[in-house]
Amino acid sequence: MDIQNLRWWGWGTLNQSFDLKGRTAFWPGLERMLELPRDRELRPPVTLEEINLRPSRLDARLLTPLRRLLGEEAIFTDRRPRVEHAYGKSYRDLIRLRAGYVPHPPDAVAYPADEGQVAALLAWAADNDVAVIPFGGGSSVLGGVEPQPSDHRCVTLDLARLDRVLSVDPVSRTARIQAGATGPEVEAQLNAQGFTLGHFPQSFEFSTLGGWVVTRAAGQNSIGYGKIEDLTQAVRVVTPIGVVETRDTPATAAGPSILGLMMGSEGSYGVLTEATMRLHPLPKMQDYRGLLFRTFDDGLAAFRDLMQSTLHPAIVRLSDPPETAAYALMSHQHHGLRRLLDKVLAGYLGLRGYGLDDSCLMILGFDGDPDDVEHRWNRALEVCRDHRGLHLGRSIGRSWQRDRFAQPYLRDDLLDNGVLVDTLETATTWSNLLSVYEAMTATLKNAIAASGGGPGTVLTHVSHAYPYGASLYSTFLGRQTSRDPLDNQEQWRTIKRETTDAILAAGGTLTHHHGIGRDHAPWLEEEIGPVGMKVLRTLKQTLDPTGIMNPGILLLS
Amino acid sequence: MDIQNLRWWGWGTLNQSFDLKGRTAFWPGLERMLELPRDRELRPPVTLEEINLRPSRLDARLLTPLRRLLGEEAIFTDRRPRVEHAYGKSYRDLIRLRAGYVPHPPDAVAYPADEGQVAALLAWAADNDVAVIPFGGGSSVLGGVEPQPSDHRCVTLDLARLDRVLSVDPVSRTARIQAGATGPEVEAQLNAQGFTLGHFPQSFEFSTLGGWVVTRAAGQNSIGYGKIEDLTQAVRVVTPIGVVETRDTPATAAGPSILGLMMGSEGSYGVLTEATMRLHPLPKMQDYRGLLFRTFDDGLAAFRDLMQSTLHPAIVRLSDPPETAAYALMSHQHHGLRRLLDKVLAGYLGLRGYGLDDSCLMILGFDGDPDDVEHRWNRALEVCRDHRGLHLGRSIGRSWQRDRFAQPYLRDDLLDNGVLVDTLETATTWSNLLSVYEAMTATLKNAIAASGGGPGTVLTHVSHAYPYGASLYSTFLGRQTSRDPLDNQEQWRTIKRETTDAILAAGGTLTHHHGIGRDHAPWLEEEIGPVGMKVLRTLKQTLDPTGIMNPGILLLS
Repeated sequence: MDIQNLRWWGWGTLNQSFDLKGRTAFWPGLERMLELPRDRELRPPVTLEEINLRPSRLDARLLTPLRRLLGEEAIFTDRRPRVEHAYGKSYRDLIRLRAGYVPHPPDAVAYPADEGQVAALLAWAADNDVAVIPFGGGSSVLGGVEPQPSDHRCVTLDLARLDRVLSVDPVSRTARIQAGATGPEVEAQLNAQGFTLGHFPQSFEFSTLGGWVVTRAAGQNSIGYGKIEDLTQAVRVVTPIGVVETRDTPATAAGPSILGLMMGSEGSYGVLTEATMRLHPLPKMQDYRGLLFRTFDDGLAAFRDLMQSTLHPAIVRLSDPPETAAYALMSHQHHGLRRLLDKVLAGYLGLRGYGLDDSCLMILGFDGDPDDVEHRWNRALEVCRDHRGLHLGRSIGRSWQRDRFAQPYLRDDLLDNGVLVDTLETATTWSNLLSVYEAMTATLKNAIAASGGGPGTVLTHVSHAYPYGASLYSTFLGRQTSRDPLDNQEQWRTIKRETTDAILAAGGTLTHHHGIGRDHAPWLEEEIGPVGMKVLRTLKQTLDPTGIMNPGILLLS
Repeated sequence: MDIQNLRWWGWGTLNQSFDLKGRTAFWPGLERMLELPRDRELRPPVTLEEINLRPSRLDARLLTPLRRLLGEEAIFTDRRPRVEHAYGKSYRDLIRLRAGYVPHPPDAVAYPADEGQVAALLAWAADNDVAVIPFGGGSSVLGGVEPQPSDHRCVTLDLARLDRVLSVDPVSRTARIQAGATGPEVEAQLNAQGFTLGHFPQSFEFSTLGGWVVTRAAGQNSIGYGKIEDLTQAVRVVTPIGVVETRDTPATAAGPSILGLMMGSEGSYGVLTEATMRLHPLPKMQDYRGLLFRTFDDGLAAFRDLMQSTLHPAIVRLSDPPETAAYALMSHQHHGLRRLLDKVLAGYLGLRGYGLDDSCLMILGFDGDPDDVEHRWNRALEVCRDHRGLHLGRSIGRSWQRDRFAQPYLRDDLLDNGVLVDTLETATTWSNLLSVYEAMTATLKNAIAASGGGPGTVLTHVSHAYPYGASLYSTFLGRQTSRDPLDNQEQWRTIKRETTDAILAAGGTLTHHHGIGRDHAPWLEEEIGPVGMKVLRTLKQTLDPTGIMNPGILLLS
């Protein structure tokens, strides 16, 4: 990855953005929704040089042997890499970064070249009581890569050089892939052999295989291809007491799952260096289309029927009415959802009860061979028609595919304008989904208003689902109440706390695919119980007896 | 379950058997294959009264408070229940039982009525240093329910009274089911509401939900419905330090999987009392048919194509040539595979290269709505034709379905005749499957011959599969070398040891669905590594600090 080209204060690379040209309704609409002052001052990020950065606490006595182990060119203690590795990419991270508030950067950033160097680094760290933070793409939105505020010296272990697909087994449809490979690196190497991993999280361009596995991520096509847990057949993890290697087998009954312990371990127990992943053949065809449902209930009923059928869609995303309206607001004036809806609503549909206030957009897609895709689409349209779903055609599907990784760029523009914006997600059973939805969205709106953030806007979709239930993903927006990053962090924390309490009380899981990190750690015991916490703590003491691995993550240290 | 009706020395109930009437080729064929002496003496089991049973080591000081906790009628110290709970149902178990060799029976058998009584029993056991062995249906074939030879007093905790489906959520397609429910009890209660769990192991009639989950079992329809891990959404486990309850959610990213630790834990950490299971609607149609392939390679290629397609069969079983020949041998003289093959082979097929020496029988089945099943069958037949698969029609499918749970009864007849008979299973990737197959079957044959067991017969099938690999399941037969159970155990142990070594060396997993128990425990470290073993031992110390739970299982105590 071209490091100089990354936006250290925000998302992605300098040459990309969420293109607002032609999306003329966006800013006026947002100003109306959030009651943003028209005369607001922009709040650009500080420059790198303006950050008051603590000097590295690693002296030559410590650095010289480390450089000997990994090579001179593999250890950085200068400003830019330390700032870039100080945080993940959450709202909370970006408001602190943009304000130049970086009190706890890592003391160095190390780039091991292979698993042997990872093990050498851990041994050096254990000997010298230095904390080690494994870092993939750094796209954590839960504080998963942030050094603990402490006197503990700290090195961030960036896996960027472990970026290869080591081997592909075309017969068994698996591949050994190194942990530091980013989404595009994974896909380019697999595509060349006719395969795909099928894992496309929104962070796809900047997140890595290892990060996905240790946070139990889900890609936008998880319905068709599986959550990362389903795609992971075996792992290698370097722990401070040795390597954990699980057997390359499609299934086993050999006792409690060690693989299941390593997935979701977030660097608490060691560094995942490679995984054997399950592949799919590159689909000959992807046919993604839009559908409109009169109500969220109708859309959910169709969604559930699709998931409980034998149709196996690659993707189903259902936006609630506010998110559907926001899509229309964000769409291009000459094409996109708004234009399409104007056309159809101006016709006979308004009369039939489809209106932007209640309607819900579904993106539904099938991957595969053309005949099979057509057969399944025909049956899927029948399912959707049973719930008054209106077929909008392929253009919406294409525009969703085009923009699928771009939205995080828009956040940087929102932050320039003093907008509070973050996301929350959970999962629950189908029968409990509306209860959790209502608890989650109502609490968010109330908490934003109570925080002084104005009329909160909450946009929700269901995008990862199973025959037995589904996830809920909400983007919430309001106004920042201050120019001080710590005040804004406090505003955010209150909203997060109240909503997370509400999600858990309603029976939702603490997180479906973002993980725990620091931000969810206070609720982990409520999720897994006191005996569960004891299990995780015991494992921490066993695998990382000197406590050097990512201290504080999962509330383990 | 009607306890008086159970064959304590063998499989199942007294009123059932594997009906050999009309299967006239069976005994002559077996005698030829194994070179069994025609003048052999039968070796019937001893009577219950002939067993020299150690008196219970629990005195009134211990029993009185236990009876107070669970009720007088819930605690048994008499002969029959203690013998019935002394072993599982492996070959090794039955040769010892039939010879009356029961040196380590449990001191009592307890039947708690609910989870509260389970917890009370564990507290009593911890206070009094009594070992507790959770017992579902007792069909373990790996020594999973056998008391450890030690001075440790021991109570077997039979879950038979926890036999209810507590609730069904038809919207989310899940059900809370108590651990002690047997297969028929689970299915009867679910079928009444239009659902099935879809889990049909060969032990179905006598094994329980809890046993399935803690041994990571697989049913005969695991291809269509999932292995038990895939069907388990949440569990409750009473450990000596408290209850572990995992959240009822279709997926989560909340850290390492506690659920994955409890599945496969075989009573080492606690007693699984209930689980929330994923259901399927009762299929409107089951269409199971036979196919014949010219070679094992052809059959495997078709099997892999089916698994890597989007056809989603409910069941695929491919027998290797020896197992195919054995099916023919076992079939009824007037119907069944032999008769069918005689008909087709007498025709033109022999000329085309299908002969019983090389041919492989596949049972392939689809469950679902008639239209969908027909559509998928048509496509499946195309896949099979690509590999020269010959469609044998539905009668073979029906006869397989009819006999699917009966074969263990046949074992009792074989044991009467001094036959060594056991099964082994593993799993690996598709690309490695033939290597493991060859290592496994060759080692078995050699080891049987070397043990003095005569020309060993090994019958193998592939019956649980994934897009990424498959399991192998071998039944091996030979002659017992002695009338002494310990000699026969030693013969068995040598064969088991050599073959398990060979499976692991070839890259197969130690077990795909039988579990670990005592018999696989010596190889667990080779499977999961020294760090993995350390993890399991640490968890044991944490969850069961006084070491009362099923000591010795998983090599943990």
